[in-house]
Amino acid sequence: MTEQARHRVVIVGAGFGGLYAARALKRAPADVTLINGTNHHIFEPLIYQVAAGILSPGEVAVSVREVVRRQRNTEFVLGTVTDVDPSSRNVTVTASDGTTRRIEYDTLVVAAGATQSYFGHDEYATYAPGLKTIDDALEIRGRVFSAFEMAELATDRAEQQHWLTFAIVGAGPTGVEMAGQIAEIAHRTLPGQYRRIDPRQAHIVLLDAVDRVLPTFDPRLSAKAERRLRKIGVDVRLGARVVGLDELGVKVETVTGVESVEAMTKIWSAGVSGTGLAARLAEATGAPTDRAGRILVEPDLTVPGHPEIFVLGEAMSLDRLPGVAQVAIQGGRYAGRAIARRLKGGRASKPFSYFDKGNLAAVSRFFAIADLGRIRLSGTVGWLIWLGVHVWYLYGLRNKATVLLRWTISFLGRTRSEAVVTTQQVTARNALRQRASGT
Amino acid sequence: MTEQARHRVVIVGAGFGGLYAARALKRAPADVTLINGTNHHIFEPLIYQVAAGILSPGEVAVSVREVVRRQRNTEFVLGTVTDVDPSSRNVTVTASDGTTRRIEYDTLVVAAGATQSYFGHDEYATYAPGLKTIDDALEIRGRVFSAFEMAELATDRAEQQHWLTFAIVGAGPTGVEMAGQIAEIAHRTLPGQYRRIDPRQAHIVLLDAVDRVLPTFDPRLSAKAERRLRKIGVDVRLGARVVGLDELGVKVETVTGVESVEAMTKIWSAGVSGTGLAARLAEATGAPTDRAGRILVEPDLTVPGHPEIFVLGEAMSLDRLPGVAQVAIQGGRYAGRAIARRLKGGRASKPFSYFDKGNLAAVSRFFAIADLGRIRLSGTVGWLIWLGVHVWYLYGLRNKATVLLRWTISFLGRTRSEAVVTTQQVTARNALRQRASGT
Repeated sequence: MTEQARHRVVIVGAGFGGLYAARALKRAPADVTLINGTNHHIFEPLIYQVAAGILSPGEVAVSVREVVRRQRNTEFVLGTVTDVDPSSRNVTVTASDGTTRRIEYDTLVVAAGATQSYFGHDEYATYAPGLKTIDDALEIRGRVFSAFEMAELATDRAEQQHWLTFAIVGAGPTGVEMAGQIAEIAHRTLPGQYRRIDPRQAHIVLLDAVDRVLPTFDPRLSAKAERRLRKIGVDVRLGARVVGLDELGVKVETVTGVESVEAMTKIWSAGVSGTGLAARLAEATGAPTDRAGRILVEPDLTVPGHPEIFVLGEAMSLDRLPGVAQVAIQGGRYAGRAIARRLKGGRASKPFSYFDKGNLAAVSRFFAIADLGRIRLSGTVGWLIWLGVHVWYLYGLRNKATVLLRWTISFLGRTRSEAVVTTQQVTARNALRQRASGT
Repeated sequence: MTEQARHRVVIVGAGFGGLYAARALKRAPADVTLINGTNHHIFEPLIYQVAAGILSPGEVAVSVREVVRRQRNTEFVLGTVTDVDPSSRNVTVTASDGTTRRIEYDTLVVAAGATQSYFGHDEYATYAPGLKTIDDALEIRGRVFSAFEMAELATDRAEQQHWLTFAIVGAGPTGVEMAGQIAEIAHRTLPGQYRRIDPRQAHIVLLDAVDRVLPTFDPRLSAKAERRLRKIGVDVRLGARVVGLDELGVKVETVTGVESVEAMTKIWSAGVSGTGLAARLAEATGAPTDRAGRILVEPDLTVPGHPEIFVLGEAMSLDRLPGVAQVAIQGGRYAGRAIARRLKGGRASKPFSYFDKGNLAAVSRFFAIADLGRIRLSGTVGWLIWLGVHVWYLYGLRNKATVLLRWTISFLGRTRSEAVVTTQQVTARNALRQRASGT
């Protein structure tokens, strides 16, 4: 048994990193266990379109089981990895019903992503959800579309405007894309649908502490994106640091002092931090972490002193690489191949080197910016590149087909097909509101 | 003011009845207020396909505001009508935040549908949701797909089989269609995706107290549907009356005695009853109701003694008409036209006469039954008719296009595109389970 037993690879997380690692192990002589907290893999770059009512959850979230179905050496386990023990080499998986089990590994791949960071103010989360999961996207969708309904029901002008004000904290790609979407909902989708309010009165405020939008892009592209945002009606406020946030709005500090933005709807896209699992792993291995709590890995993506533990994507910290899909994809592929090579008794891997294919962000309909190294594009050409790249990377022909049809409908027409607000959402939000107001 | 004021029509409910009534009033000299508890109109005949993971919520639920957008005499109000006062002619609307307002009417159209009836056992609802709303469909979808996950995690055979048993109570169209869908999920979609269970071991039990499935169809079609159900692996148990239902299963009484069906997943499609609003209306007007609490209307769909109050669709009881879309559509159109005619000072309406276009039910892929009066079809021909009719009646070109694409994908392939189980659903369900077991 002992000598003959197959090498066991445990992969934590079925995001880009985890899935690409599993795929790279398809033909390896190993038993792969892929563990994820939900039943679906999320195509994160388009999750904001679920929040915006363009795409359905199934179009950006595919069944993990379906993806790894044909990969006979791979088993999917639904559950959350709540602990890791590097000395006896096992992880603890907690199922949704609270039961736990241990799964042993010979090699561990931690691709568990990151969580939304509120920079020490977790109490903001209730009022300003982030945009990392399908739950988040549906919650934000419910809040955005409900806000217009609440404005229509409001009895005075101030209350109306309070409901019609949207604050987005963080002007990275997600914040910019979400601000652009809310502007389009207000200016293209909803006008004519209300009798008491004009949805075009919506005030969309995009806040960031830094001095430009999309700071990971070339400054000239940031400037173009900002101009476009202003043109479609987004109030961009830079150099504005959030110092308070509650049910009713956001407090920001700027050079001129502290000011309030009274906004009933708030979205947080300002930063990420390592997961609890990363913290546990750091604690157990003594691995150093960066300020955000992500693990500082060796050049071959392993934990110092633990060549059997790889950390990928947003969970790792290496050379200040950004938390984008490409870093996770390439890291996953690198780790999977490195493990397969080791099993064949091959030579050690060369250090991981990230090939930056470029950055894309869609500001509005027909307008995206593309930072492709030496080539920098904006406007319609950038948007076509954005469209092509996203369709290319989407999982499966099926999703490519339905997403293309949705886009044809949304971009040529005015409607948002997926704008259902469920009763459960409304009930949960009101319970929250009542708790907050102490009634 | 008094003489010049426009006639006010209040329509309660934006289902088929309410929407068709509003449409028929498009050119009438009246101010129409359409009130609905959610922001969407549901295409009820396909809601089971949301529960089955084929269609997304937006494909069967369209924005009410979008539908009535161009109808300038119509205002949509989001809220639940919680009371009606026929003497001073107003309804009370409660918004989601609990605030109430009164809306006055000159003519009232009650098209509020019906609620799931558990025949006096409302405690069943938690364990066996019905299939009337988008919330219901998403909940059932979550339970069905989660059941296979729980079976995969189960540690012994009995527990596995408990999770793999599905009980559907009520063999009308919804029950039959849902049983057929679960059978297809178990036999076509999921095989190969699990490593510890074989999804084909799923045991799908369709229960009804009567002696045949689809009792509103011709008996020969019922027999064909039943044969088909058995062929695709559904355990049809007729003459079985539910006498108990809890977390763990269903107890049924048959001629041979009481037996238990141990099923973790249960779906209820066994009957409807009038809403609370119908009860209030009956109380306030002294109108008679049938056993299910639906209002017995006059031949012109008005409440006895109240020619200014129409009751439509599932909310009304007339000539034992079934609670199907066509009855609501024709009733809505009839009421809208009758109101428009009155406003022109025209003669009184002829009694409402229902034109039965026939009944359709899809048992499985490529197999439906169609009872079109003298013509009775089953199998593929019936299925093509089913498909054509449903696409024809779907709202808007947009939804017709996306639904056709989805069907092409699902019927030719094996996958279910919309099978996301959200964390909120899982959490809510576990909380419930823990409360039920007293832990």
